[in-house]
Amino acid sequence: MAVGKCDFPNMLNIAGITLGTACAGIKQNVKDDILVIQMAEQATCAAVFTQNAFCAAPVHVAKTNLAHGPRWLLINSGNANAGTGAQGMQDALLCCAELAKFAGGANNQVLPFSTGVIGQPLPVEKITAALPEAIKNLSLDNWEKAARAIMTTDTFPKGVSKVICIAGQPVTINGISKGAGMIQPNMATMLGFIATDAKINQALLQNCLAVAVEQSFNRITVDGDTSTNDACVVMASGCSTAPEITAGSEHYAIFADALMDVCKQLAEAIVRDGEGATKLMRILVKEALQMEEAVRVGKTIAHSPLVKTAFFASDPNWGRILAAVGRSGIENMVLENVQIFLDDVCIVRNGGRADDYTEEAGQQVMNRDEITVTVKLGRGEAAQEVLTCDLSYDYVKINAEYRT
Amino acid sequence: MAVGKCDFPNMLNIAGITLGTACAGIKQNVKDDILVIQMAEQATCAAVFTQNAFCAAPVHVAKTNLAHGPRWLLINSGNANAGTGAQGMQDALLCCAELAKFAGGANNQVLPFSTGVIGQPLPVEKITAALPEAIKNLSLDNWEKAARAIMTTDTFPKGVSKVICIAGQPVTINGISKGAGMIQPNMATMLGFIATDAKINQALLQNCLAVAVEQSFNRITVDGDTSTNDACVVMASGCSTAPEITAGSEHYAIFADALMDVCKQLAEAIVRDGEGATKLMRILVKEALQMEEAVRVGKTIAHSPLVKTAFFASDPNWGRILAAVGRSGIENMVLENVQIFLDDVCIVRNGGRADDYTEEAGQQVMNRDEITVTVKLGRGEAAQEVLTCDLSYDYVKINAEYRT
Repeated sequence: MAVGKCDFPNMLNIAGITLGTACAGIKQNVKDDILVIQMAEQATCAAVFTQNAFCAAPVHVAKTNLAHGPRWLLINSGNANAGTGAQGMQDALLCCAELAKFAGGANNQVLPFSTGVIGQPLPVEKITAALPEAIKNLSLDNWEKAARAIMTTDTFPKGVSKVICIAGQPVTINGISKGAGMIQPNMATMLGFIATDAKINQALLQNCLAVAVEQSFNRITVDGDTSTNDACVVMASGCSTAPEITAGSEHYAIFADALMDVCKQLAEAIVRDGEGATKLMRILVKEALQMEEAVRVGKTIAHSPLVKTAFFASDPNWGRILAAVGRSGIENMVLENVQIFLDDVCIVRNGGRADDYTEEAGQQVMNRDEITVTVKLGRGEAAQEVLTCDLSYDYVKINAEYRT
Repeated sequence: MAVGKCDFPNMLNIAGITLGTACAGIKQNVKDDILVIQMAEQATCAAVFTQNAFCAAPVHVAKTNLAHGPRWLLINSGNANAGTGAQGMQDALLCCAELAKFAGGANNQVLPFSTGVIGQPLPVEKITAALPEAIKNLSLDNWEKAARAIMTTDTFPKGVSKVICIAGQPVTINGISKGAGMIQPNMATMLGFIATDAKINQALLQNCLAVAVEQSFNRITVDGDTSTNDACVVMASGCSTAPEITAGSEHYAIFADALMDVCKQLAEAIVRDGEGATKLMRILVKEALQMEEAVRVGKTIAHSPLVKTAFFASDPNWGRILAAVGRSGIENMVLENVQIFLDDVCIVRNGGRADDYTEEAGQQVMNRDEITVTVKLGRGEAAQEVLTCDLSYDYVKINAEYRT
């Protein structure tokens, strides 16, 4: 099940970035499950990683290797190489070394990423055996294959392609992401891989990514669980004919906006594919004192199993939304100043059900599969949006049966 | 569905405390839905209430009236009188006034409590019409009827009865509670009503209750949602032949222990009746730096939908437990020092799966319907236990269909 627009777009090529997939046989089926991405020699690369204290072995290795001018990403799905102790670290390093050997680079120029079941030993031999095939397949136009190779419980591949104009020259940004459960990214997403042909130095690219991720991947939640393996990477090949993007310039603003937009679209795609999702819910919190307050209220609503099951049932049970706002931990909140809307229908005003609210009007909104819940706190001018999905029988089914 | 021991116990009478129920017709069925509890004139009464900022109208009234020497509790199920604005306050006050009129007391000696659907006007006329019947039924031995009258989605009535010995004299403590969903009490529970014939002054009784609730109702969670109507009340009729319980005495310690035990049993009964629950999970966090840290880790595990669905599936997916510990926000946690046990089976040691762990051993534990998850953090000596239940299809079903 997935909500709304889920077609894979036509992706442009990014000069200087090639992708190759192969089937290592990590999963039980015969789909491609490893992906190698190669960057041009002059490329810069920035990344953000999960804040989970027990981050997986590949996250440790990728964090370290980010400082050594990465040339390759090696991603596998089907196994997270998390909770695997010292053996997991050895396995991640060995995969990097094998890729470097085949591709002709240094071990520490490879960033490894793993996603899938936690706590199982990484099948290193299967992965290294499939590396030559993935390298042979390296090509500019493998974006959809790449998006498919990193899927786990995802029901559709997620991609975005965007062209902006820098000094009259086209600059392209492509991104792919995966994720459907264990989703409450914190300074990172599940897995997101973004590439551009822009010229931009590493420090600036890292800034740009951090800002974009904060407003996109860090504003979504499916089930409030933060993965051990979350990572989002942006690679800039520098192969565009456009001039280098420099700090504080007009070009930087254009590029940063575009990167943000790509991140937001990829993040939204993850929520649309939320495990068992039948509805996309935009929780828009306005009139908060500060951004943090708006996010806190938004996430409290977005995490409430009672709110999420009511949406699954298309039940305009606004009392549950009000209760979630009330327990979000905001001090000195005045109930009488709070207003709540389902799309454009006002349901709560002056501390109770709005006088002009009718169950029919509420029901009409709830029957839609994309709904905006707007909460006006009446305290200030900050606003933030959090995206989530409903909680259905299928969420339980998918997660009860994940390993069987 | 409910887990394990759910029979209603034989409840002793509490001299000075009488209970009467009646059917006001608030719910669609014809069960008793209002409960009046009358206390002896000299009784003392203590209470704790929800920390939800949008607490319901009756909570406001009960908080105020607690200072006026309460003689009556008036409880209705089927309607929470929450999110009902100024009308809700009027309605709660009117119900108190009507009860005082019939029973012959002052309006502000009544504490009102409501539980049920949020956001619907309280059917005041139905309630006041049924008051004479409830008052006529006042009796010492109506504890089970009382426990049934306050149920909403509960599948069984919850009661505890306990006798302790103070200076050679028996002192009895009875308690009833209700709750199955929207359960993450914070300084209070859903609804809990406890009565004793002990002599104890109000300030001391309030202290005693606050300590007991912190270690019982505040250590359980079903779905992480804190209700707008939570309250826990203890009434002490002073009718026992035992001497008055005074601060710092040996008798106080005995009484406080017994009250804590009653609260813990009532809290556990709520988790056993968690909406859709098939398993009771005790999350025991040991070797934490402080109590707060242990509670934080315990609640992060207890709230994880991924952990809860794995338990529903009887799947020893310890990676999800490890991931929850990792995202609980504890600083400088060392993965290598963490150990995790399912009952007595060690599953995680030295940052990975324990060498001697087998899936068979894990599976054997998971097939049980009461499981203790022990997490040793290796940081200090604090320990705390959090109780929760699994997340099943039926949780979604119950909450998707609640208003239909």
